Amino acid sequence: MDDPSLGTIFLAEAVGTGILVLLGGGVVATALLAKSKGLDGGWLMINFGWGLGVFAGVSVAYASGAHLNPAVSVGLLVTGEIDVVQFAVYVAAQLIGAFLGACLVFLAYKQHFDAEEDTTKKFSVFSTAPEIRSYRWNVVTETIATFVLVFVVIAFSRVGDTGSDAPAGLAALGAMPVALLVVGIGASLGGPTGYAINPARDLGPRIAHAVLPIKGKGTSDWAYAWVPILGPLFGGLLAGLASYPLLPLLS
Amino acid sequence: MDDPSLGTIFLAEAVGTGILVLLGGGVVATALLAKSKGLDGGWLMINFGWGLGVFAGVSVAYASGAHLNPAVSVGLLVTGEIDVVQFAVYVAAQLIGAFLGACLVFLAYKQHFDAEEDTTKKFSVFSTAPEIRSYRWNVVTETIATFVLVFVVIAFSRVGDTGSDAPAGLAALGAMPVALLVVGIGASLGGPTGYAINPARDLGPRIAHAVLPIKGKGTSDWAYAWVPILGPLFGGLLAGLASYPLLPLLS
Amino acid sequence: MDDPSLGTIFLAEAVGTGILVLLGGGVVATALLAKSKGLDGGWLMINFGWGLGVFAGVSVAYASGAHLNPAVSVGLLVTGEIDVVQFAVYVAAQLIGAFLGACLVFLAYKQHFDAEEDTTKKFSVFSTAPEIRSYRWNVVTETIATFVLVFVVIAFSRVGDTGSDAPAGLAALGAMPVALLVVGIGASLGGPTGYAINPARDLGPRIAHAVLPIKGKGTSDWAYAWVPILGPLFGGLLAGLASYPLLPLLS
Amino acid sequence: MDDPSLGTIFLAEAVGTGILVLLGGGVVATALLAKSKGLDGGWLMINFGWGLGVFAGVSVAYASGAHLNPAVSVGLLVTGEIDVVQFAVYVAAQLIGAFLGACLVFLAYKQHFDAEEDTTKKFSVFSTAPEIRSYRWNVVTETIATFVLVFVVIAFSRVGDTGSDAPAGLAALGAMPVALLVVGIGASLGGPTGYAINPARDLGPRIAHAVLPIKGKGTSDWAYAWVPILGPLFGGLLAGLASYPLLPLLS
Repeated sequence: MDDPSLGTIFLAEAVGTGILVLLGGGVVATALLAKSKGLDGGWLMINFGWGLGVFAGVSVAYASGAHLNPAVSVGLLVTGEIDVVQFAVYVAAQLIGAFLGACLVFLAYKQHFDAEEDTTKKFSVFSTAPEIRSYRWNVVTETIATFVLVFVVIAFSRVGDTGSDAPAGLAALGAMPVALLVVGIGASLGGPTGYAINPARDLGPRIAHAVLPIKGKGTSDWAYAWVPILGPLFGGLLAGLASYPLLPLLS
Repeated sequence: MDDPSLGTIFLAEAVGTGILVLLGGGVVATALLAKSKGLDGGWLMINFGWGLGVFAGVSVAYASGAHLNPAVSVGLLVTGEIDVVQFAVYVAAQLIGAFLGACLVFLAYKQHFDAEEDTTKKFSVFSTAPEIRSYRWNVVTETIATFVLVFVVIAFSRVGDTGSDAPAGLAALGAMPVALLVVGIGASLGGPTGYAINPARDLGPRIAHAVLPIKGKGTSDWAYAWVPILGPLFGGLLAGLASYPLLPLLS
Repeated sequence: MDDPSLGTIFLAEAVGTGILVLLGGGVVATALLAKSKGLDGGWLMINFGWGLGVFAGVSVAYASGAHLNPAVSVGLLVTGEIDVVQFAVYVAAQLIGAFLGACLVFLAYKQHFDAEEDTTKKFSVFSTAPEIRSYRWNVVTETIATFVLVFVVIAFSRVGDTGSDAPAGLAALGAMPVALLVVGIGASLGGPTGYAINPARDLGPRIAHAVLPIKGKGTSDWAYAWVPILGPLFGGLLAGLASYPLLPLLS
Repeated sequence: MDDPSLGTIFLAEAVGTGILVLLGGGVVATALLAKSKGLDGGWLMINFGWGLGVFAGVSVAYASGAHLNPAVSVGLLVTGEIDVVQFAVYVAAQLIGAFLGACLVFLAYKQHFDAEEDTTKKFSVFSTAPEIRSYRWNVVTETIATFVLVFVVIAFSRVGDTGSDAPAGLAALGAMPVALLVVGIGASLGGPTGYAINPARDLGPRIAHAVLPIKGKGTSDWAYAWVPILGPLFGGLLAGLASYPLLPLLS
């Protein structure tokens, strides 16, 4: 396809990331907030909710390549697929979309936020927090998980390239592979930190948590906010760099 | 394909919606009714049951475009893909199909309806009710959830259009994308109201609940019946309107 | 493709149905038998086990059209796609395959059969039994569930036919649609009788249960054996008949 | 595609198996280790974690054919698709990749290994152990499960061959069919031994368990180590041999 304009990038990334966070935050609300029909639905349900949030978000954002994640954008910046100006537009749109998506989760679950007493559960609908706090190890976990995400997404993106060994026609699957990948990463590497694996998905809703009039609101935990930014960006960067020597062989 | 005749629309939508509601209502019966083998199967199982009900229903209704939902039809009425007469036939067929599908659920689970004491559980097999009743907020939740459904379905429907950035061949996935989308919306936005997101899916079975000879039947809760009609129609309308400025950019 | 020979039909159906029953019976063993790692894995896990058993079985049986089920074969006999001699070969192979598949489940879980005290659980690995016994209503449930299976499978099989409105290329999905359909039918209509929806899947393993040297074995429940034969055959027959007036419109 | 070089085989198999084991070991850590957000996530979640680990691993290893498993390689050695030298490179790379993947799981869950008291749970993140120890029957279970894996994978691999009855275009699904197959085998045949079904997936992480500085580490259970090597190799060999008489008919 033709290179998308900056306006197209902005709109597609904002709407796509908004839908991603609306469904992703929503499934946490379903599983945790008082009186939800899906209360205690379990970790696999949360994994499917986020994975299918990615599915829906990517499905409306083909025009921009559907990054929906600064860690993906930084990986593609490193591989030269986008430039610095485009990178800035991608990230700004992702942040704004994630903020708005979190606001919509709040509206959809307004009464359940009111009925829930536990401030930690209310915060969990917005952003991530580690089960065992240790900034160093939390960064390690987020870096590894995001490396897998971006490295495999870069492999997906080479489908159809000249010289690729990936099956012809694979691109016709659309958003399904990345959705499945996110389900898998969540199930497998989400246990320690809640798999932000996306700085916008974490920071945008954290800002929303800070500014929205949530009844009985607790801390927005700004002390931790840099971890789900740094870890994913570092993981995406590593994946982009690793793709230079590896992907010509691998896909 | 050629434009379907009104008779084709009627048959395809009635049969497709009937199968959708048969599997959708069935999974609630599986999870809730006394002595079911799948008792307490959990929210994710209910999400898969409805999603795969959509999958089966869409798979037999390609001839009509497989709306199976007045909220989808109203979205496509707004975008000009169908006219008012067609819209009326779509909705009438969807309602009749949903009514008949609910009757089949009753037959398949007849003995379990007899064995179940809880009138609320029996009603839940047919139609939705909110966990925290507030007509205003319940409409908000249904509107948001249905907006996501119809907006993403419209994006799916543009696959293959001239100028679309969606991967060529994506249409070959058939009913799988919309099935996954419904699993995701249920997991993420179904907690407060039970995600009707489809006026026919709620009203048709509500009528069935009112007229069927269900042992120890409770109320059909007509006071709430307008919420899962208005919310989804409003969400579908908004999605149709939003697709004017957004989709030329997005897909 | 060319019409398969009777020998090809026999081998493909026997191996395919064997793998189907090996994985299907296996998931029940996983969920029910003492000391299994997946003990109490839940109804959705059982649904996925059977659905993916169908997936694996169909994937090795394309040469015969992968019926793997007399109810499917009877539906295609009615629609004229196979003749009576072929029908007999299909059914014989399906029964033999299902018997052998059940024997392999017994070998794979031999020690767990030895460790399990509950004769009902041991029998459940092989064949179905209703939660509320009533031959009439049990037949109704099996008929409805199998009607959905065969009707939708016939719709799948028309993909690519001249005049079909189904998306071109849909056949490339292979065994995935029928696998998803079986997951959905199990989740939605399996609660009362355990969804035999396939006479061979039930009778073959029932014979295996009767003849295998299972420690502390209980009844093979022959009084019920005709229900999961008659119900599914009737459902398949109805689906085949319904496809005459409906499918030219529907797919 | 052209035959891959030995270097390509090595890199692709090592990276692909590493990602497989990272996600596969990771989901066991999620489900078992103290303070994980997905604690007690259930057997189906573990099945999805391993299945999607295969999905991610295969997606980056198309260049080598994505065996990622000596049991698959031995099956394809028997069918003549690879020679002995290639086989040795495949297996060496798979072992090294599996070892490194297990090390990454340890890093991602470092604090949870520290917090967990149960040595058996810590070991389970790395390698398999049977619920009822009996080398003979454990080999039988692993052989049957791996036979299904390799036999169906060989059927997948013939898609598109001249004379195959499999749907044209099926290869476009990429890694999805094998991922679903692994989910199904785990759910259905994993109850007794934990479905190694892959000697590298078991031995590589067992070595990692032996050498890593895991706090409060228990035995690496070397007495059992040969079972998940012999069983899977035997199952793969049988599948390769069975494909001679059967697959020309079956696919």
